[in-house]
Amino acid sequence: MRIYDIIEKKKLGGTLNHEEIQFVVTGYTDGSIPDYQMSALLMAIYFQGMNDDETAHLTECMAKSGQMLDLSAISGIKVDKHSTGGVGDTTTIVLAPLVAAAGVPVAKMSGRGLGHTGGTVDKLESFPGFKVELGLDDFINNVNKHGVAVVGQTGNLAPADKKIYALRDVTATVDNVSLIAASIMSKKIAAGSNAIVLDVKCGSGAFMKTLDDAKLLADTMVRIGKAVGRDTIGIVTDMNQPLGNAIGNSLEVIEAIETLKGEGPEDLTLLTVTFAANMFLLAHRVETLEEGIQLAEELIASGKAMDKLCEWVASQGGNPDSVRDYSLLPSASKDMEVVAKQAGFVESIETELIGKAALVLGAGRENKESVIDLGVGLIMHKKIGDQVEAGDSLATLYYSDQSNTEGAIRYIYEAYKFSQDKVEKPQLIYTTIR
Amino acid sequence: MRIYDIIEKKKLGGTLNHEEIQFVVTGYTDGSIPDYQMSALLMAIYFQGMNDDETAHLTECMAKSGQMLDLSAISGIKVDKHSTGGVGDTTTIVLAPLVAAAGVPVAKMSGRGLGHTGGTVDKLESFPGFKVELGLDDFINNVNKHGVAVVGQTGNLAPADKKIYALRDVTATVDNVSLIAASIMSKKIAAGSNAIVLDVKCGSGAFMKTLDDAKLLADTMVRIGKAVGRDTIGIVTDMNQPLGNAIGNSLEVIEAIETLKGEGPEDLTLLTVTFAANMFLLAHRVETLEEGIQLAEELIASGKAMDKLCEWVASQGGNPDSVRDYSLLPSASKDMEVVAKQAGFVESIETELIGKAALVLGAGRENKESVIDLGVGLIMHKKIGDQVEAGDSLATLYYSDQSNTEGAIRYIYEAYKFSQDKVEKPQLIYTTIR
Repeated sequence: MRIYDIIEKKKLGGTLNHEEIQFVVTGYTDGSIPDYQMSALLMAIYFQGMNDDETAHLTECMAKSGQMLDLSAISGIKVDKHSTGGVGDTTTIVLAPLVAAAGVPVAKMSGRGLGHTGGTVDKLESFPGFKVELGLDDFINNVNKHGVAVVGQTGNLAPADKKIYALRDVTATVDNVSLIAASIMSKKIAAGSNAIVLDVKCGSGAFMKTLDDAKLLADTMVRIGKAVGRDTIGIVTDMNQPLGNAIGNSLEVIEAIETLKGEGPEDLTLLTVTFAANMFLLAHRVETLEEGIQLAEELIASGKAMDKLCEWVASQGGNPDSVRDYSLLPSASKDMEVVAKQAGFVESIETELIGKAALVLGAGRENKESVIDLGVGLIMHKKIGDQVEAGDSLATLYYSDQSNTEGAIRYIYEAYKFSQDKVEKPQLIYTTIR
Repeated sequence: MRIYDIIEKKKLGGTLNHEEIQFVVTGYTDGSIPDYQMSALLMAIYFQGMNDDETAHLTECMAKSGQMLDLSAISGIKVDKHSTGGVGDTTTIVLAPLVAAAGVPVAKMSGRGLGHTGGTVDKLESFPGFKVELGLDDFINNVNKHGVAVVGQTGNLAPADKKIYALRDVTATVDNVSLIAASIMSKKIAAGSNAIVLDVKCGSGAFMKTLDDAKLLADTMVRIGKAVGRDTIGIVTDMNQPLGNAIGNSLEVIEAIETLKGEGPEDLTLLTVTFAANMFLLAHRVETLEEGIQLAEELIASGKAMDKLCEWVASQGGNPDSVRDYSLLPSASKDMEVVAKQAGFVESIETELIGKAALVLGAGRENKESVIDLGVGLIMHKKIGDQVEAGDSLATLYYSDQSNTEGAIRYIYEAYKFSQDKVEKPQLIYTTIR
């Protein structure tokens, strides 16, 4: 088998068979296929696409290119959740204790990554003492004992995906739905859960800008899940404005806690309850979505979700008092309001720019060497559809370094567009694909 | 400027401007753009194409990436000729003395290359003592003194093309008409001639299999020539069977000599006279094609073309007696006939397989290390449309090593297809684009 012939076949619109896909993944991972042939193949795939079978097989080969986590020592159906990413996405910190409180095991690996704020494991480090680096045995023991553990990615999961993604990133071959879907699903499959709920974000702050693209990605991933024997649900949700109101690390942790108390923002609450309900369904904890939603709401109302959060934080070495006493969490030394210059209704929010505002305040990483300031960030006070009077605060900035605020303020003003006419609040959950 | 943005732009169907193309060619040649980004761009170009302006500019940038030969010390209009390659193509050895005999200077660089037989410079080495490695000064002096010189490629002509071609060759991005045209034309432009006649081969033995593809390539190259100020004519000719009857190095040299004597095969004679006439036109030596054809035929009939061949061979150190006495040329020790097993009319000849027959006899190079046997090869006795009786010789093999003949015989039988109905002889010259 020659990689040249595989490139030529795909270039001419052919379908790659299992042996060819395995040859590509193995060869590229072990270095016998050079970057320049792989990038030519990826560009050919960009133009010619891959069918369901090719996509599923690529996913499986990438998943199996490294360690496959064995979570069989955890009893019950393990349901993982993945979000394609957006701004102000705090759902994992709400979902992990909420789902665990229902007796459904949560064994989750999560990333740090570059972004407007840190990743989930960065945010968790806002709890003083919280350890995100657990060995595999401790990870499994924690889930068996407390029902929940969230740790940084360990081991060598899907190294083929890692290497291929790095190449796509510099060769303009990221934006192909099969390659995106295979990349996400390969990591989820290697991470060992039995079922997967996907939050496919859609809108100005998401990678998928249109509903059609987001639906296609969700659909592709659900079909991969079916093909490889992992029950998968894809939910397309809105990212035309940040989710919740907080953007920042400890600020989002506080918002997550408030949501678990039943006092969180409406959108974050709706989203996390919906996702929890779908996870309950996949874990066979409930029989209908309605039953799942009711269970999630009860766990919040009864305080059981909060109790589980305390237990979880303590189980990973965090100070459980910080869950009730926010003064124990990292915080910025200073704050200021960004006030509306004009009256009107919020028509749109350029989500990406709100993220950048948080980034320049120090909440995220611009590069691998950046150090995150866990306390800084911003709280939005106006979302799409809200009525605003001149002088109302659009957002509060929490900052440590005054010199960063100028850029953040500029981004916020740039992000908000106003209308003189009343504006509808956007739909949060567009569709569910199973 | 970032190569990533250029890949993305082309991927989305955009048009690259002059600065972007220059950036790509310079960056790839100096190594600042890595192979893997270049191959992604080449694959994007394969799918999205390039317009006339992009193609001409790519050609010019590649031509200027190395040495640009300065032939201004040679008086007169220098007309180069290029063939896109086929089997049994001996035209340069006929054309060089024929054109020079008309007083039109021939200053040609030619290749060795891999192939069924050697390249033109290999074939020229059949003349005992013939030197193909001349310095630039000797090259120019020879043209000024004798009107003709053909040498192996010297200097660093179009290194960008060389590097890009090598990458295309391993990434399945050869077959794009803009890239093929730019590659050919960049070398011709760097080689310093004022005008160019292109022989674009079409058919089973050519890179371009269909007339439409060949026309498109010819048209693209003629438009590049116009855009960069080099008068260019593209002639699409048939390669559904080998040109002439001889395939091999000294065998083709003999056939070329016979053609210059007026005793060559009909097809080779027609082709070389036509090309000579077009070169006379471009050199302003004649005013009409008809006048050019008449001049070429006169130069052959009068023996002036043969005299020029003798002068040329001697001027490059070759033994001029070998032009009249073929026993002085390399020859194979043994020969045998391959006879027809059945009667009929030759319907088609798989040109590529005839070439392979010559290759296995030792006439060409399979890899860079191969040593060519100048004496071996074959003479075809039957071409498309010829009537054949069982027992007629299809071809005579000239060989040194008996063990090579079995493969050659198999290729020849495989190449010939017969019909019981009369078959038309194919057209040789399809169209001329100027």
